[in-house]
Formats: sequence, structure tokens, C-alpha cells
Amino acid sequence: MSTFPRPVAQLIEELSRLPGIGSKSAQRLAFHLLNVTEDDAVRLSESILEARRKIKYCSKCFNMTDVDPCVICANAKRDNKLICIVESPKDVIAMERTKEYNGLYHVLHGAISPIDGVGPEDIRLRELLIRLQSEPVEEVILATNPTIEGEATAMYISKLLSATDILVTRLAHGIPVGGDIEFADEVTLAKALSGRRKL
Amino acid sequence: MSTFPRPVAQLIEELSRLPGIGSKSAQRLAFHLLNVTEDDAVRLSESILEARRKIKYCSKCFNMTDVDPCVICANAKRDNKLICIVESPKDVIAMERTKEYNGLYHVLHGAISPIDGVGPEDIRLRELLIRLQSEPVEEVILATNPTIEGEATAMYISKLLSATDILVTRLAHGIPVGGDIEFADEVTLAKALSGRRKL
Repeated sequence: MSTFPRPVAQLIEELSRLPGIGSKSAQRLAFHLLNVTEDDAVRLSESILEARRKIKYCSKCFNMTDVDPCVICANAKRDNKLICIVESPKDVIAMERTKEYNGLYHVLHGAISPIDGVGPEDIRLRELLIRLQSEPVEEVILATNPTIEGEATAMYISKLLSATDILVTRLAHGIPVGGDIEFADEVTLAKALSGRRKL
Repeated sequence: MSTFPRPVAQLIEELSRLPGIGSKSAQRLAFHLLNVTEDDAVRLSESILEARRKIKYCSKCFNMTDVDPCVICANAKRDNKLICIVESPKDVIAMERTKEYNGLYHVLHGAISPIDGVGPEDIRLRELLIRLQSEPVEEVILATNPTIEGEATAMYISKLLSATDILVTRLAHGIPVGGDIEFADEVTLAKALSGRRKL
């Protein structure tokens, strides 16, 4: 649009590439950024580059980190006999937020999905197997997503490890806490039923 | 939150300062920015600084511009006998989008608001009066917002110019196109009634 001076049009275009930011939001953000203090704009601009420059994957668990090994792998207080396998770094953050898990992680960076051309060799599975050989792991918790791809990945890993004496577990599925049974989908409800526990 | 590596936490914090971006959206945007190509991240980062560095106010109309005078003031095809007075550069963009206006603008950068301590000397009114003395203006269109402050500013300017022979007009108020009379608020409906036109 020629109504905006070129640098503003450019900024709006870049902002509207962000997920969930439409052209109206991008305009609003651009005008905001033109009005904040110079310092604020520089801080945002630099933190984008800084994050990219400093963030890499942990060479052990492949979680996002700015130090290697990551703070979780390096923490001697965590239980190294327990590994939770997740699809993405976001899942690590979700697990950590529970404050209930004290083991280590392994981030696969994806899930097996033949339809998208993602096979076992495209995710960090080989690295997992190497870890399991060299580390004193007793239990592997499969925390891949309850999607077709996540389930397939969990199945695949579970079969891979069936020959070992490592205990393989899967996160429980069921009604979300605060959720309403009336509105639960039938798959979730069926899982909740089959996974019922004695009180 | 210690769950994020420091550079990521920093990026999330900066993003969540943006208007309309909560902490969840900021996380989503941060992860997105960590995953786009280096080029894309650099382009966004630089366009923030670039826009701020290059954008200034036009010395004639005080609209945002990267050249001085701005492309509108410098355009010899526009009618320099007509000046549309608006509160902010966003209003210029809205007016330009109509493609129906071919005069010049004057951006006040605010509206008179005694309650916020904004008086006539705090907006670009003096500059407007100087322009009106040196330019061949025949009509001034008051396009301040239909708010208390915008109306007060329009009134003030209209009184200032009553001694001159410049025609002072105000944008029409009424039912928005596509709006529903049933849901129009009573002030708008009253304005629409009093401003009714012969068909």
C-alpha cells in the first residue's frame, strides 16, 4: 500500500508474517513500535537476534538451551534413571511447569508421520538409543502428543525398547482437570474409562 | 520463569510488552522466531530499527514520512486549497484509503483535552495557523474524531477561523454504511437524523 511510507510498509509486512498477526494487528504493532522509546525498540530488535544467536540444542537431550549441556541435563539433583520423551521443546516447558517431574528429557523434534514423509530416521531417535546404551536409564516415559503421529511414535519407540529391560510408560489420557464430561469427546472419554483407577 | 533459557525469556518479555500480545502469544511468537530462517529474523529485527530511524514528521503537514516534505505535500496534483485536519497519522491513512480525497492534510498529533492536561498549545495548532496564512487554503475539513476531545478540538479550530474567510466543514456523522439502524446508538442516530439529506 502506497499510503504508508516505505519503511513503515516494510515493518508492517514483516510483522504480518508472524503467526496470528493479521494486517490490522501488524499496523497497530508498527505504529506502537514507532511511538515507544528508542531503547524499547532497540531492546526488542536485539532480543530477536540475541535469542537466535545464543539458543542451540543441548547435545544430550536436544532441548533448547543457551549452555551445553542444558541446565536440566547438568543438574545433578535430577533423576538420571528417568527420561521423558517429548516431541518439542515446548513440551519440556509444559512438563516443567507441573513442578512434578524430576527426571531428564529427550526431545525428538518431531513425530513419525509417513504422510508428511517423516520417518524414524528424521527425528532424534538414533540419539535416544545411543543415550539409553550409555546412561543408567530405568524408565522411559512416552510423552508424545495424543495425535495419530504422536501415538505412532510412542508405539514405535515402545517396540524398539521391548527387547531391553527398560520400563516404558505412557502419559495417562483422560478427562482434563476442570473439564466437563458432557463435553468430552468420545475418544477421550473412552480412554478415561479404560484407564480408570481404584479410589 | 526459569523454565526458559535466558535469551528466550528475554525475547518473550520484550514481545509481551507489545499491545495485544499476552504471555501465551509472546511465547508462541518467540518460538516462531527461533524457527524461521536467519534471514527472516534479521529482516524483522532490522525493519524495526529502520522504520524508527527513517520515519520523521513532514515539516508542512506533520504526517509520518521518510522524505520531507511528504509525498502528499510534494504532490503537485493534489488540491492545495483544501486541508483536512486530523488527530493522528493513522487518520491520514484511513482518509487516503477512501481514494476520494485529493487535498492536503494537517496532523494535529492529539486533541484538546483539559482533563489530560492537553491544551491548544500542545497540539500542532500554531503550525496550522502559520500554514493558513502562507498557503492559498479555501476550505478546512475538520476530521477530528467524534469524541468529546475531537469535538472540542473541532469547535476550537472552527472558532479560531471564524474571523477568516476560510470555509470550515466537518465530516458528516451518521449510520455507518452496512450498519443496522436497530443497533445504532442514540447519539449517532440523532446525528443521522439532524444531518438527513434530500434524495
